[in-house]
Formats: sequence, structure tokens, C-alpha cells
Amino acid sequence: MRNLIILLALLFSSTLSAQQAQDAAQIRKIFDEALEKGESYEMLRYLTKNIGGRLSGSPQAAAAVEWSRQQMIAYGFDTVFLQPVMVPHWVRGKKEIARVVNSKKLGTVPMDVVALGNSVGTGPKGVVGEIIEVQDFQELAKLGRAKIEGKIVFFNRPMDAKLMDTFSAYSGASNQRGSGPSEAAKYGAIGAVVRSLSSFNDDIPHTGGTRYALNIPKIPAVAISTNGANQLSELLKDDQNLNFYFETHAEMLPDVLSYNVVGEIKGSEFPDEIIVVGGHLDSWDLSEGAHDDGAGCVQSIEVLRLMKAIGYQPKRTIRAVMFMNEENGLMGGRKYAELAEENEEYHVAALESDRGGFLPIGFGITGTKAQQDKLLSWQPLFTPYGIHQLKRGGGGADISPLRTQDVPTIGYLPDSQRYFKYHHTGIDNFEAVNQRELELGAAAMASMIYLIDKYGL
Amino acid sequence: MRNLIILLALLFSSTLSAQQAQDAAQIRKIFDEALEKGESYEMLRYLTKNIGGRLSGSPQAAAAVEWSRQQMIAYGFDTVFLQPVMVPHWVRGKKEIARVVNSKKLGTVPMDVVALGNSVGTGPKGVVGEIIEVQDFQELAKLGRAKIEGKIVFFNRPMDAKLMDTFSAYSGASNQRGSGPSEAAKYGAIGAVVRSLSSFNDDIPHTGGTRYALNIPKIPAVAISTNGANQLSELLKDDQNLNFYFETHAEMLPDVLSYNVVGEIKGSEFPDEIIVVGGHLDSWDLSEGAHDDGAGCVQSIEVLRLMKAIGYQPKRTIRAVMFMNEENGLMGGRKYAELAEENEEYHVAALESDRGGFLPIGFGITGTKAQQDKLLSWQPLFTPYGIHQLKRGGGGADISPLRTQDVPTIGYLPDSQRYFKYHHTGIDNFEAVNQRELELGAAAMASMIYLIDKYGL
Repeated sequence: MRNLIILLALLFSSTLSAQQAQDAAQIRKIFDEALEKGESYEMLRYLTKNIGGRLSGSPQAAAAVEWSRQQMIAYGFDTVFLQPVMVPHWVRGKKEIARVVNSKKLGTVPMDVVALGNSVGTGPKGVVGEIIEVQDFQELAKLGRAKIEGKIVFFNRPMDAKLMDTFSAYSGASNQRGSGPSEAAKYGAIGAVVRSLSSFNDDIPHTGGTRYALNIPKIPAVAISTNGANQLSELLKDDQNLNFYFETHAEMLPDVLSYNVVGEIKGSEFPDEIIVVGGHLDSWDLSEGAHDDGAGCVQSIEVLRLMKAIGYQPKRTIRAVMFMNEENGLMGGRKYAELAEENEEYHVAALESDRGGFLPIGFGITGTKAQQDKLLSWQPLFTPYGIHQLKRGGGGADISPLRTQDVPTIGYLPDSQRYFKYHHTGIDNFEAVNQRELELGAAAMASMIYLIDKYGL
Repeated sequence: MRNLIILLALLFSSTLSAQQAQDAAQIRKIFDEALEKGESYEMLRYLTKNIGGRLSGSPQAAAAVEWSRQQMIAYGFDTVFLQPVMVPHWVRGKKEIARVVNSKKLGTVPMDVVALGNSVGTGPKGVVGEIIEVQDFQELAKLGRAKIEGKIVFFNRPMDAKLMDTFSAYSGASNQRGSGPSEAAKYGAIGAVVRSLSSFNDDIPHTGGTRYALNIPKIPAVAISTNGANQLSELLKDDQNLNFYFETHAEMLPDVLSYNVVGEIKGSEFPDEIIVVGGHLDSWDLSEGAHDDGAGCVQSIEVLRLMKAIGYQPKRTIRAVMFMNEENGLMGGRKYAELAEENEEYHVAALESDRGGFLPIGFGITGTKAQQDKLLSWQPLFTPYGIHQLKRGGGGADISPLRTQDVPTIGYLPDSQRYFKYHHTGIDNFEAVNQRELELGAAAMASMIYLIDKYGL
């Protein structure tokens, strides 16, 4: 009996290791294909160079929908379809203007700013007023209406450079952009200037969405570069009554019909079990939207192409989803979850790439402990590729609405050190993406999808 | 007795963990200082933008010597001194010219090439001849004098894109550049064209040193971009007798007096035990030499500055060494080891940064098994910073001569995916370096030096 148990254990363990060897071989095939013949980079070239920036509602966003539809058809995916969704249509209008009006030392000081996404414009007369610097909402509340009314509020809390994960640093500062204008308006402010959410001191302003609170006056709002913010803060030390002028021509137009774009390979055994891999197709208007999130889109398409290229027939249905309107509304992500519920679809898992086309270092998963444990148990298969951080907690904005249906969500984690140099700027262009890093990311994602397809989650 | 042992073990383990906590805190201080107030990036800006490319023997190399000397004095290092060394003085001369002469399909096809470092020039008449493609020296030998004599040999073996470590891919292809011209000359070739050592298909030629063998005619040699090499290879399929012309104006001038630059903080307990951290000050002439190896130089200076900034007084003597002439002679590295032997210096360890200013991922060590084990045992202290590959085997060209004195050599390992886009090209400029990645590298190196100083090796 004891010998039998040992024999069974041996058999079992050798089966396991044969299986592991098979998985390692498949993953090696995926990486080889991506590194030698990957197509993410050339797809990204088209999306960025031939289409460009593609804010929701823009002609370029429509072009991106049609391009990704055609691209997935051309790759021979089993089904390619659109999910109609109404999206906000914000336009920046003419280039912004800003200046310090009355510096004692420097007189008029021009400043480079960009309007925040969704913000109202000042119109051609601009807005001018005394500018007052705050670090956070507590300080703002303390100053109160007495000190804020009729002024422009300058939110100047930097991202914490000491944090290794720059997304944590971003989270620690981003409420200034998202809620700052409305918070300032509560106390009667007439405009808001927000320090750019950047990990670097440079001259490049970063846009990004702001959300106006209900029943609070909508005031115009701009982001200023980190160097500009530092200079402004220095000037404020010398001048008690520094006046700031800015002019923006942004406006919110009526909603526009747009689409999520979905391509899928049907599962051979469990076609009704769906695994999603996606990114968002819309981008800000200032650049080509290469890292944010052209990279995630082309990598998601590439995941399906890689499976076909290595001759892997998935058991479950694998869907590449190009979500629309992540940047200023999340209408695509919401619509996708809504339709999944309406159609009673069963989603095994959803994986999103929305942290740029940088070097792959890990994945983070939100789900049950058992789901997390299972994913974490695959660590040895990723280690040979420098991917060393499989961890608990993670996902992505577009797939987050699926959490209400208990779908485990997984965030693809490229290294984050360079991301907030490009994020929402005018320099998030094709040239900022490295081919090997981008293709390695697609291979990492395909490997994860392969394992989820094979073993469930 | 048994209780006593347990008690001792507990005491010992709690002592250990208190020590580990202290080390973790010191390393956290190093990283905080580097991320918030690091000076590597501004040093690199000066070295690249104000001095620029600095091939051995050039005025810029002399400027770099003087700059690094002054910089280390300005930081208040205990001793700063020069080590005189004679170095080769190769100059590129006028811009190279190259073309396919007689393509049936395209006629004359201009090609972008750069002369290999140390190579002889063709002079104004250039060299012209039938071009013949080979993949390696075996193929060359097989063709022999009958097929090679009077022709130009085109070495076209690509770097293996499938290898995760691009330095391994480089090693697998670099003999074509280092020895190809002399190998071809053995069979009577009149010139050599070498496929650029790049991980990418693009239009950028990569220079780099070639070594002429003794008693073999020195023939002119150039590198061609990967796209150019692919095009040339395609043309060769259609044309049996494709002729190639190239013109280079390079020449080797008499040796020049130059210097290694050394700055040190004297050890408080063991001043005669030396720990080296270094990079090489010379670079190729085509660019500013930012990644190769401006990065390693400024990081090495920064290691000592970081120690002073966090108030750490090393027990051993820490030396930042700017080696001269790594690119085309290694005379500085050899001189350093020679002087170390002559002066009977005891070196605990030597660490080199010469793989670019990219994201830190590890260190590799060559030494005894005990030395390797000790270094590898520090892994947990590096894990919080994404540095996950402490491994056996490693070093650097400049510190390799110290191996004859049994000094353990350590190579700093940044991620390698992007390196061979910039290496030895015209685009290895300041703009190619990311500030956080560069400063993180300096912090990683400083942490390693701190541990070696504290515990020996």
C-alpha cells in the first residue's frame, strides 16, 4: 500500500512536471514568435502615425474603430463585432494661453498650460485673478470662502518621487486634477491651475479628465508643467498679490455614437466561457496616444494573433476588446459590462493593458483568494522572462465594471518608471515606444491568457 | 542546555533581523536621496551636452578627464587623483560614403555606413569590388581564397532576437565586427562590410572597435545599418555580381597621454581595503556617449556622493574610477590593475556599470563560490526596488584585468532590452536616458557598495 502511494505520488508529480514542461514550451513559442515576428509595433505605427490622437467623439476615434475592426478581420479572427455606445464629445478648441500678469521681479511671465479634459472654456476674454497656492483640499477648506472667493486656485502637490510604483505616486496626487476644480469652486474660485501629474521636472504640461461635481459652478481649469508650477510657486513667495491670466476654448458638445470593438477566437471546448484581453482605443488629443493606450490595444489584438501563429486552439473563447472612452467617461467599459450581464455571458477573467508599452515585470489580480493563489502559482513560468511580480490586487479602469459580476480582473504591469513622462502629454508618440518592450508585453499577456484558457481561474 | 541553545538561536536570529532592518533602512535612505535629490542626471547632462562624444585621444576626452576631476573635488571626496596612461588615437575623418554600384533593379543605391573603430581608411579613391555575403567564419573559410580574393566581404549574421539577454545576442554576433575584417583579409578580401550589432531593424549604423590580427593586411571596414544589410542581402539574391563602393577617411595617429580619474572616500577602519565602483569615461565619436558610458561614470561618482549625503562613513576606502579607453584599447583598465599590483593595493571588490542607464534589475558576480553566496544572500534587501537578479558570473571590461589579482568583479545589470538601439550609434544622446532609471541605477550600486563595505566579500 505504502509503495502504491509512493508510486502514485511519483506518477502524479511526473505528470505535473511534464505539464509544466509543456506550458514552458508553449510560452517559449509565444515569446519566440513575438520577439522574432511580433506585429504589435507595426500595428502601433499605423494607429499612431496614420490615425493619431483619438479622443472620444473625434473623427480619429471613428477611424480607430474602423481600423481595429478591419485589422482583426484581416487576421482571420472568428468573429469581429461592434458594441454601440454613446460617448461624451469634448473638444479643446484653440491653443490655450496663460501668463503671470504682474510679477514684481519678472513682469509678465508666459506659462505653458493645457485645458483639463471635460473642462469648460473661458472664452476669448479669458479669466484673470489673484492666484493662491494650496497643497491639498484640507488646506483649501481651511482658507475657506473668505480667502478663495474670486480667486484662481493653484493646486501644487507633487507626486511623491520616493515611491517605486509611480502609479501610487499618481494616485496620491491625482485628486487635484479630478476633483480640484469643483472643490475650489465650492468656495467661489473662478479658475483652477493644477500642477501636472508628472514624475519629472520639465516643461511639458499633462492634460487629463476633471469631473465637475453636481450643483457646483463649473470653472475653467488648466494643467501647468512641473517646471512652470515650481516657477509659479517661487514667484508667489515674493508677491502677495500675484495675478494670473488664462484663456481656454474648450467645450463639451452633444454625445456621439461610438463603439467598443471586439474580436474573438471561439473556444473549442467551452465556447461560452469568455476570457477578455483589452485596452482602450480612445486617447487624449495632444499626442498620438502611443503608450496610453495604443500599446494596450495592439497588444490585445496581438495576443490573439500570437495564439493563431503558434497554432494554439483555445478551449475557451478569447476576446480582444478595444474599449472606447476610458479617458473622459468610461462609457465603453460600462457598456461592455452591461451587455455581458444582459446577454448572460460567463466571463472567466478579464485582463487589461493600460500602463504603457514598457518592459513587462508582472501582473496583479483582483478576485477570490483561490483565484489569486492559482495565478500566483504560475510565477515560475514567467520568471525566465524577467516577469517577477505576480501579485494580489490589480485590474484596469475599463474592466472594473465587470467586478460587479465577480469576474476576476487582472492588470498587466509593465515597469512604471518612465510612464509619467509621457502620460497625457504632447510627447506620447510612437517614438516613445520601444519595439522589444512592446512585443515582450504582448507575449507576457498571451502567456497569461494561455494559462487561464488551459486551467481556468 | 537545550533551552540555552534555543535562547542563543533566538538571540542570534533577532540580532540578525535587527541588522537586516538597519540595512533595509540605510538602503531606503539611499534610494530616497537618489529619487528625490539624485545628481546623476544633471552630471550626465553636463558630460553629454557640454563635452559630448569623447573618443580616446580627443580634446573632448581631455575635457572629460578634467570635468570629472573637478566634479569629484567639488563634492569634497577625500582624495582625487589621475593615473597617466598612453592611449590609441584613432580619428574617423570625413563622413563615410557607400553605395551599391550596379543593382540591376535599382542601379546605384546609396548606403549609410560608418567606419569601424581602429580601421584604416580607404582614402579619397575608396575601395570598390564585388561583394559577397557570409554568415560566419566557417562559411568564409569554406569559400576560401578562390572565392574571396579581391572582393568585399559582407558579414550579415543578425543578433538572435529570441534571447532575452541582448548582451548574449550581442556576444553571438560581435566577432564579425571584432575579427571579421582580419578574417576576410586572410583570404585576400579588399574590404569588409559588417551588419550593425543592433536588436532592431532600422537605418542607424553602429560603429565599434575592430582588432586587426598581426601579420595580416589591414583592410578598410565599415558597419551598415540593419535595414541596409537586409536590403543589400535582398539585392544580392537578384544580382550575382553586385559591386559595392565605399570610402572612409579614418586613420590611427600616434598614441596620446591620457588618464584614469580616481576619487575616493577614505575608509575609517580599514583604509587600505579598497572597493572600486567605476565606468569608462571615453565613448565613441558619433554621439554624446550617454548610455555608453556616461551613465556608468556619473553613477559611480554619485555612489560616493550618496554615501556622504546620507551621512554614511564607510569603513573601507571607496573609489570611483573613470577608466579611459575602454572602447578601443582597454589601456585604462589595464593600467589600473597594473598600478594596483605595483602598489600592492588590496581590493575587496570592483563593480562596473557599463550597460547603460536603464532600469536596474540585478548584479552579476565573478569570484569564489563563497563570495558569490554572500552577495546572493543580500537578495531580499534589493527585492523592494525591483532588483531581482543577483546572479553568478559578471563583471565589466575595465575591471576584468583585476581578476588576475583574484579581485571579485561585479557587473551592474540594468535591463538590456533597449541598449542595442543606442549602442555605438549617433543617437546615444542625453535624451535617450530616463532620469528615474539612471538615478535608480546609482542607488542600486550605492546599496551594493554599502553592503560590501559593511560586510566585506
